[in-house]
Amino acid sequence: MRIAVIGVGLIGGSVGLAARERLGAVVCGYDRSPEALDAALARGALDRACPTTAQAVAAAEAVFVAAPVGELPGLVGEVLAAAPADCVVTDVGSTKRVMRAAHDDPRFVGGHPLAGTETAGVQHARADLFEHATWYLTPSAATSGVLYERLHRLLTGLGAQPTAIDADTHDRVLAAVSHLPHVLANVLVSQAAGTLAAGGERLPATGPSFRDATRVAGAPSAIWTDIYLSNRDALIAEVDGTVARLRSIRDALAAGDAGAIADWNDAAAADRRRLLESQLAGGELFELRASVPNRPGVIAQLALELGRAGVNITDMALYPASDMSDGVVALWIAGERASQRAEELVCGLGFPVARP
Amino acid sequence: MRIAVIGVGLIGGSVGLAARERLGAVVCGYDRSPEALDAALARGALDRACPTTAQAVAAAEAVFVAAPVGELPGLVGEVLAAAPADCVVTDVGSTKRVMRAAHDDPRFVGGHPLAGTETAGVQHARADLFEHATWYLTPSAATSGVLYERLHRLLTGLGAQPTAIDADTHDRVLAAVSHLPHVLANVLVSQAAGTLAAGGERLPATGPSFRDATRVAGAPSAIWTDIYLSNRDALIAEVDGTVARLRSIRDALAAGDAGAIADWNDAAAADRRRLLESQLAGGELFELRASVPNRPGVIAQLALELGRAGVNITDMALYPASDMSDGVVALWIAGERASQRAEELVCGLGFPVARP
Repeated sequence: MRIAVIGVGLIGGSVGLAARERLGAVVCGYDRSPEALDAALARGALDRACPTTAQAVAAAEAVFVAAPVGELPGLVGEVLAAAPADCVVTDVGSTKRVMRAAHDDPRFVGGHPLAGTETAGVQHARADLFEHATWYLTPSAATSGVLYERLHRLLTGLGAQPTAIDADTHDRVLAAVSHLPHVLANVLVSQAAGTLAAGGERLPATGPSFRDATRVAGAPSAIWTDIYLSNRDALIAEVDGTVARLRSIRDALAAGDAGAIADWNDAAAADRRRLLESQLAGGELFELRASVPNRPGVIAQLALELGRAGVNITDMALYPASDMSDGVVALWIAGERASQRAEELVCGLGFPVARP
Repeated sequence: MRIAVIGVGLIGGSVGLAARERLGAVVCGYDRSPEALDAALARGALDRACPTTAQAVAAAEAVFVAAPVGELPGLVGEVLAAAPADCVVTDVGSTKRVMRAAHDDPRFVGGHPLAGTETAGVQHARADLFEHATWYLTPSAATSGVLYERLHRLLTGLGAQPTAIDADTHDRVLAAVSHLPHVLANVLVSQAAGTLAAGGERLPATGPSFRDATRVAGAPSAIWTDIYLSNRDALIAEVDGTVARLRSIRDALAAGDAGAIADWNDAAAADRRRLLESQLAGGELFELRASVPNRPGVIAQLALELGRAGVNITDMALYPASDMSDGVVALWIAGERASQRAEELVCGLGFPVARP
């Protein structure tokens, strides 16, 4: 398999390492920094360093664009202009609506691996960075099913768990579970520093709650300013919700209302428990085979439907009929209950399902 | 050494285990739950289980009162009424002003170890729970120097790092570095759950930032409701500061002001860096010997002065003159710079300092 990586930092470099080591892929790379490109080559993340984007992608079957969020729409446009007709192109940006708005090419699938943003640079790249990591994919109705399937299998090969999600939901969810935590970590660390400075106190030895809560504070501005801004409406909604919740607990404190404080705390405990439980899905693999018409968007529709219901597609394979009029998509789902749910959902879309 | 532990949960049980294993102390215990008392005895945290507080403390040289914050003022009063005249009494509550307001006995020193509040119960007790943990002490002007020194040495023997701090500062600092992080963890986990539920989404696979930021969410209400309420004015000030900071970053997001967002993020990074640096103090031990008059409050004054400047007293010893008119206190300070600072501070209080 021939892969191109545009931008060879932590994520791009790890894609290169994993694709070479785990899949035996041939990886071409480009980076606007010649030093980064040399480092990636020396690190073994690339087979070949190319002087232009066009040369890197010329013969690729799959292209990963791994650059800061603000540069992605332009870079992906360049790549789509130069990439072959049967090449799948994806990005790794932390927000996805802006990419959907910029590109409606059947070869493009937005992507976002939930892995390693705290340390930057190819020197931190690892072949196992994506092991067991959720890798969100945001196919659109225009996305080619064949190319989506190729990307899904490729990501599984890198060790990741690809999960389809629509771009709006992705950005709303990420605002809540990633961008807001970063904002709160920043606010907390500066609030504490401000309180201590106001009293002329040194920063004291802190307990584990403070260290945990501020671990991601002050993540690199070069990356995070773009992320915050590219998702700002969803993030503003989360900040507003947070302020409303803080006001409510402030009122309970001011009123000395022990019952309200205990209820609020118990509710948080229950929310956290549900969250942890939802991370523990899994089990035996079941195969489903769905007959699907050969038209654009079908695979995306199917992947999104299952993603929405929380059913994880562990692996998938597409078998087109010889006349290309229709085909069969095989899905491997972990856990009997999840596989039954998947069967209902796929049938509900009007596609007959068989279990081989 | 004879020690009494009133309340044998995680903290009380760990004090008992550490005092017996590390110091060869004889430990008597009382708990209003007979089951907890039996469990502590079986666990090896106690030499003897006593049927009343008075019996447990009757022959003690030091008493640790380890109960939920709301019960502490009453329990400490009971202990002071029953304890010998030369016995030091301390508590382990997470807020300290309420204790200072309740008790002004020369035998009482408020305390607060920064260790293990996430899991409760003597079954989680460990002899090494306090190893390298900051253990705040809040002596008052009334505190006996001899008894303060005894407690300081005892805590050092348990593996902890006793640090003197006045009760107001303690509560303000803890509001910022412990109580506020707990509030924000609760708010974040419920905010995310609310956002996902509103969109009919399952809770998704989350990245490390969310897990880190919500690790302490929903801590036991039986403990934390009291903590929040006993420190509510300081906590309300922190919540108000947090809301103001969230408003300010919300405005920058709404205005699309990349410069302001980057500045805010860089400031958080700088605050975090300062915080981490301040945790890394240490080095070679230097001994200082200060001549001090034998009057109440001198040791507390000295310990608080050094605590305020961030100078950690690794160990201390008090040598009274035979006529008790004055004495020498030996202080061991880690790091040459810190020891020089300590010397200046102690001299500044009017006490001559020698280096042996």
